[in-house]
Amino acid sequence: MPSAASLCAACASLAGGIAIGMIFGDGLKRLISPSAKLPEGSKEVPLTGDDKKDFLSIFQALTEELLASIEPYSFPPRAAKYIEAMMTYNVPHGKLTRGLTVIHSLRSIRGGTLSSVDFRRAAVLGWCVEWLQAMFLVMDDIMDESETRRGQPCWYLREDVKMNAINDGLILEAQIYVLLKRYFGTDAEYVQLMELMHETTYQTALGQFLDLTTAEPHKVDFSLFSMEVYSKIVIYKTAMYSFYLPVACGMVLGGISDPKLFSQTKQICMEMGHLFQVQDDYLDCYGDPEFIGKVGTDIYDNKCGWLINKALLICSSEQKKVLELNYAKRDKECEKKVKQVYKELDLEAHFREHEEKSHAKLLSMISQVKGMPTDILATLLAKIYKRNK
Amino acid sequence: MPSAASLCAACASLAGGIAIGMIFGDGLKRLISPSAKLPEGSKEVPLTGDDKKDFLSIFQALTEELLASIEPYSFPPRAAKYIEAMMTYNVPHGKLTRGLTVIHSLRSIRGGTLSSVDFRRAAVLGWCVEWLQAMFLVMDDIMDESETRRGQPCWYLREDVKMNAINDGLILEAQIYVLLKRYFGTDAEYVQLMELMHETTYQTALGQFLDLTTAEPHKVDFSLFSMEVYSKIVIYKTAMYSFYLPVACGMVLGGISDPKLFSQTKQICMEMGHLFQVQDDYLDCYGDPEFIGKVGTDIYDNKCGWLINKALLICSSEQKKVLELNYAKRDKECEKKVKQVYKELDLEAHFREHEEKSHAKLLSMISQVKGMPTDILATLLAKIYKRNK
Repeated sequence: MPSAASLCAACASLAGGIAIGMIFGDGLKRLISPSAKLPEGSKEVPLTGDDKKDFLSIFQALTEELLASIEPYSFPPRAAKYIEAMMTYNVPHGKLTRGLTVIHSLRSIRGGTLSSVDFRRAAVLGWCVEWLQAMFLVMDDIMDESETRRGQPCWYLREDVKMNAINDGLILEAQIYVLLKRYFGTDAEYVQLMELMHETTYQTALGQFLDLTTAEPHKVDFSLFSMEVYSKIVIYKTAMYSFYLPVACGMVLGGISDPKLFSQTKQICMEMGHLFQVQDDYLDCYGDPEFIGKVGTDIYDNKCGWLINKALLICSSEQKKVLELNYAKRDKECEKKVKQVYKELDLEAHFREHEEKSHAKLLSMISQVKGMPTDILATLLAKIYKRNK
Repeated sequence: MPSAASLCAACASLAGGIAIGMIFGDGLKRLISPSAKLPEGSKEVPLTGDDKKDFLSIFQALTEELLASIEPYSFPPRAAKYIEAMMTYNVPHGKLTRGLTVIHSLRSIRGGTLSSVDFRRAAVLGWCVEWLQAMFLVMDDIMDESETRRGQPCWYLREDVKMNAINDGLILEAQIYVLLKRYFGTDAEYVQLMELMHETTYQTALGQFLDLTTAEPHKVDFSLFSMEVYSKIVIYKTAMYSFYLPVACGMVLGGISDPKLFSQTKQICMEMGHLFQVQDDYLDCYGDPEFIGKVGTDIYDNKCGWLINKALLICSSEQKKVLELNYAKRDKECEKKVKQVYKELDLEAHFREHEEKSHAKLLSMISQVKGMPTDILATLLAKIYKRNK
């Protein structure tokens, strides 16, 4: 059986599948895969119906397959042990929202139910998204000199790891393409999935670049800050891989082929990711540390966040002086003075207004999507609207 | 015009191209591209006929295209400036052997001459290989705490860069796929080229992992050393991206489609890369620092090199004690004692013997390749045989 990735629509039909159409432009070339199936020899994973539990079982199967894939290299046994520990430490943690969103997105496209093969394929792609995030977190923690991540010491701080963590990050990234080839290498969607991963990786790295160079921890330079730069950072560093990538993965698997639908979804996910980050910035300052599980440090850390950008937009020149003298000074008293200005400017009200506007805009954007179910978008929005943690 | 990447052989024929054949297995799916051409709007680069000069002109064109590709992001102007400086500092340096090998490889396959379009396409792929190397060098220098690279301070040591270099490495890697998509996205070879890059990246990172964990600079543990581990490190960390990748890129562009030819070439390139590294290790100890341009530090640095592995294989238990007591002690006197044992064991003669055997083996392997011109392999071998720098 030739690779479906190199089958054109006409031949896919001849081969017994249903060719839905090929649409070119915007780099999107899609087909409903005529024979979506799991690769030969893929491990049986009994599904329980509990998405998160099943998703985690599939992680186990994938790590076993990845370890088996390096067996032909005949590395010393300690190599496989290290790589297994490295994957287990860094990948299957956090809320797994991004990975699970791929499953929920495909289920939404499929109209509410998923076959076990569809579930497995969506879960594998979901793990690819989680793998990508793990790579970025391993790398970012080194750059930010962070200490903990998801309740455990950062990977690079381990005595047996240190700067080798950089290479571990590259291994994590490369494993995404081992999984993609194994599970989707003979599918019509293969090229599109690789391109989606490449593009998102590039965008996330560009967003991270802009973040890193806009606000060095010890050098306050408000001339670099602006609401526009803030939005770029947020959209490229976070929204693309956290919102658009998982939803788009579900759409690709679900055979969505209209570039306009991808473009509309991208716009919605960018807006949604932006709102999510504005909320994060608000909670960093105004949230209850007990409830959100951490003490905010954005003012200490010279973050180019929404609050400081909003403040700079609407403050008086006297207030601006206070902000310049006290922002990012790593001092409790200075932090208080910044917060005092925020209070004078009633940033809380401005935030509420922003959240309402953005929510209304998103509802309207979602209502304009025709040609595919939008429950996944509505569900994501409902999850974040008025969240307090 | 639909993407050639999703055209099957029959349809490629109908589309006016010449379908040479599709061969499956070993993950190789190949077609001679029916209409190899440059992407629309690609900058004109007048070729002079001097490969290295032309190759460097094409670098200029590619950096301009990469900068143009982020224009839609509307980042602040300083972003493009930084990214341009980052590419210029890290990519087009060194001897450019790997990149030029893609051009020489395609020229060999084509029987000695190249059209300007073929030259451009091979040069773009050559730069993709150099981009990959640049990414690894940026990352490796941080992990090894190196100070200089290609005659200039390592990128991460620059005051305006530091640990942001990690993210810059990720940007360099992602740019490979921007170039591949732009220049080969509508070609039959697209999937194969992406897979070749993915696989080589993974293998190089795995080789680097083995290297990093076999010999930490300050912890001598000969029980981790062996000639077998040495060979694994060398083959995966260096030979794959330095020898196989550029030759295979030329073969793919040249329409070679027999998996056996790729597999034979891979074996030859692995052996050649191995010989190259053994020579490097020999020169580190026995080469003339004036001539090779650096003072060897392998004994200081606890490197799992060929000399120490050979020594451990053939030494007496007394000699082994001397090695254990003096290897990697970062001390001139200790280094002398190690070299004394090397002298007693006549490692120079053992090296000469190894070089001769490996050379003879390579000649024989090359002579067994039938179905494509092998001048590129013979030329590469002639370049390294008995090299003294």
